[in-house]
Amino acid sequence: MKIPPAPFKGWIDEYHEGIRYGMKGQIILEEQSAFQKITVIESKRYGKGLLLDGCWMTAEHQERHYHECLVQPALCSAAQIKKILIIGGGDGGTARECLRHKEIEHLDLVEIDQRVVEVSQQHLPTIGGLAWKDPRLHLKIEDGIAWVAKSSDASYDVVIVDSSDPVGPAKGLFNKDFFENCKRILRPDGVFATQSESPEAFRQVHIDTVRIIREVFDFADPLYGWVPMYPSGWWSWTFASIDQPRYKIPILKRVENIKNECEIWSSRWQIGAFETIPAFIERELSK
Amino acid sequence: MKIPPAPFKGWIDEYHEGIRYGMKGQIILEEQSAFQKITVIESKRYGKGLLLDGCWMTAEHQERHYHECLVQPALCSAAQIKKILIIGGGDGGTARECLRHKEIEHLDLVEIDQRVVEVSQQHLPTIGGLAWKDPRLHLKIEDGIAWVAKSSDASYDVVIVDSSDPVGPAKGLFNKDFFENCKRILRPDGVFATQSESPEAFRQVHIDTVRIIREVFDFADPLYGWVPMYPSGWWSWTFASIDQPRYKIPILKRVENIKNECEIWSSRWQIGAFETIPAFIERELSK
Repeated sequence: MKIPPAPFKGWIDEYHEGIRYGMKGQIILEEQSAFQKITVIESKRYGKGLLLDGCWMTAEHQERHYHECLVQPALCSAAQIKKILIIGGGDGGTARECLRHKEIEHLDLVEIDQRVVEVSQQHLPTIGGLAWKDPRLHLKIEDGIAWVAKSSDASYDVVIVDSSDPVGPAKGLFNKDFFENCKRILRPDGVFATQSESPEAFRQVHIDTVRIIREVFDFADPLYGWVPMYPSGWWSWTFASIDQPRYKIPILKRVENIKNECEIWSSRWQIGAFETIPAFIERELSK
Repeated sequence: MKIPPAPFKGWIDEYHEGIRYGMKGQIILEEQSAFQKITVIESKRYGKGLLLDGCWMTAEHQERHYHECLVQPALCSAAQIKKILIIGGGDGGTARECLRHKEIEHLDLVEIDQRVVEVSQQHLPTIGGLAWKDPRLHLKIEDGIAWVAKSSDASYDVVIVDSSDPVGPAKGLFNKDFFENCKRILRPDGVFATQSESPEAFRQVHIDTVRIIREVFDFADPLYGWVPMYPSGWWSWTFASIDQPRYKIPILKRVENIKNECEIWSSRWQIGAFETIPAFIERELSK
């Protein structure tokens, strides 16, 4: 028997300040976890997609824009990448993107909401991919703020914050105490990475985030890219380091190992993306 | 009497392949011109906005993303900028952006649809700004394809194509004959610029456009930026030249003259934006 195609009659939209971005599709799961509303949809254009509290998080065919740009500038530039920490990232995409690098020995993935992990494993298995079965992955269902507070000094080569917007469970991931702990647990030749919101749709949060990270770390710069499903489609990630601005210099051998697997990221793209700071943000940050 | 604020109850959306981008607002004008359906809205977030055939074209508070990125890389890098041609651009934004440069003596703005000009002058006057009254501006309501065919060899310092998508009246602005005429009428030390669609939402059109321009011109490269209201928010413009890739090297004096007036563009931004070619497009174009 031939299964008829999905009708995709409805629209699932994220609303943000008088703008909406919608995908044609249908909701296949909606539940309230202990932390947030979790929605999974089947979309016509980008495959299955995940929303948390009504905000687009990821989708099967539009996730590399986000995950490659958060992960590869850090993983390709830290002096060594044996031990990695990811805060958030319960969909598994950031872990998968990291674990492409064979040099990784141990990856801690610290996600506060177990249901995000379970729902992603069940409905969006391609996003985490082989990461979920990789023995190097150590999944901890814990509060990321508490995790960085209790971790030892200089114990990670790379620390990545893969958070949602600074409301709800992610609110504490955008303040100075948290970033200071991230710096403390990072090796002096390591790299810190975080998503840092949209310079257009979350202009002030973006500016504040970059400023705080610059106060905490010796070197920090935002990088700009595209995630069509996020408000305005214009997104940023901020990278920081201690001994020198190492996030600006990809290590050739690592680039060679992964470049054919990447859709968006390349060392050329990365170098350019640190320069495409819009004039209004550059002026604001130089005040 | 206090005028109550607009209710902004409705949504005006552009639909594209299972995705929609909408602004909360209300339609204040809708008419069918000889060429296309023209819609003007008053939006909550970005002021007044213009749609042609249901596609977002521009809005008062989101137009500099597009106009600065189309214009300034060309205007800041051509050897001289006395005589400029714009094909399309009936909203006036591209002309306004050009006319910031005092070196311009003569600007031909060739728009096929008189109603786009009239509607923009009436409802979106800030987009054209002072350009409409600038004696250097020569508005021609004519077919851009015929205009470039009849123009003299090497008669323009800069040729800019500010078109809508390659359907309807803009279809003929994406083919080899047209680009060959653009090259013919350009001075050998001039620069050609065109919007070249989204690498995400119009991937094949984008690739084909860059390829054709590379066949015609000796040097041509795409540059990537953001126009949140366009499909995917991820946009491109392609620049070309004859004697050397001059569009890559902004002339310092011109940069100094305009940099404080720009919101997105800076010479730093421009240099980066030519490098942020996504890996999948770079691979495709190198085939």
